[in-house]
Amino acid sequence: MSLVLDAAAQDLLFREARTANAFTDEPVTDEQIRAVYDLVKYGPTAYNQTPLRITLVRSPGARERLVRHMSEGNRAKTAAAPLVAILAADIEFHEELPRLLPHFPQAKAMYDTLRPVREHSALVNGALQAAYFIVGIRAAGLAAGPMSGFDSVGVQKEFLDDDHTPLMVVNIGLPAGSPRPRSPRLDVDEVVTTV
Amino acid sequence: MSLVLDAAAQDLLFREARTANAFTDEPVTDEQIRAVYDLVKYGPTAYNQTPLRITLVRSPGARERLVRHMSEGNRAKTAAAPLVAILAADIEFHEELPRLLPHFPQAKAMYDTLRPVREHSALVNGALQAAYFIVGIRAAGLAAGPMSGFDSVGVQKEFLDDDHTPLMVVNIGLPAGSPRPRSPRLDVDEVVTTV
Repeated sequence: MSLVLDAAAQDLLFREARTANAFTDEPVTDEQIRAVYDLVKYGPTAYNQTPLRITLVRSPGARERLVRHMSEGNRAKTAAAPLVAILAADIEFHEELPRLLPHFPQAKAMYDTLRPVREHSALVNGALQAAYFIVGIRAAGLAAGPMSGFDSVGVQKEFLDDDHTPLMVVNIGLPAGSPRPRSPRLDVDEVVTTV
Repeated sequence: MSLVLDAAAQDLLFREARTANAFTDEPVTDEQIRAVYDLVKYGPTAYNQTPLRITLVRSPGARERLVRHMSEGNRAKTAAAPLVAILAADIEFHEELPRLLPHFPQAKAMYDTLRPVREHSALVNGALQAAYFIVGIRAAGLAAGPMSGFDSVGVQKEFLDDDHTPLMVVNIGLPAGSPRPRSPRLDVDEVVTTV
């Protein structure tokens, strides 16, 4: 056995955890989201950029506005989930770097001039943090239903601004019903090569 | 306490885990990498794309070629780490979708025509998997030193091909010495808003 993490934690976070498409009525509290964030905020990003921003869609009106921008197949489950979060990347993350990376004061200047560089970096590092967040949702005993099927420009205009790019929409709650059989994964020998 | 994951696992994966810049001489085995992959391969990606590809740089010659493409500040630690991995995203991931998403045979056709759509999707979903991989390295009791400071085009030409985009280079091993004090993180109220 090459892993140090105990088997129950392996199961909770990866092996038994499944993307959920249906949930019980049990609410997801702000305290749970705070606990998830306060754990996964420590996940590493390049230059400690931490560009992830999270919008919790709680009011019925906001939920309705979001559902309109989801792909047809994602609408019913997004309307019904106990909580829905829009995960986005802040392209102006560099404004916070003097505070986030005090031992490297030049960091902000590295990103000041080139917005396309910031866009690429925010996308990659925001996605890293989105993955940590999904792992954190599972660490809270909840299930995540991450979705990429939505009108990104529509969601951005409705809930964000030009400086925030949507990464995904995530349904969150206690899972209900049985998931479909797990889809296959690539074998390690198809993914890992050695030089 | 809002989390279900036990405190030791929280510490191992997030709270006590730190990016490492120096390592002991203890080797990192193929069995360890296999165990990491076989755990984190279950992390979710859009349409089960799983575009992450991993190149383990083991031979002295390959290590030397890689170090040349690293930023100056990353060279010494990349030369000295027990193992170095290049994480890349496969832009042609859609070729595997008929096998990876058997319940949705239309998936491949969704990506067939538009390479820019695949590039964006591979980048985001490859980054999700890179984050799962970093969590998995920690689950194996190892430390990761992920780096974005390298000549991406150079690394791509040297080790990959036009269909594989480098995401990051990761040093892997048992950490040595004391890390610098942890950099600050944004407070939950700076990151999470509710609508």
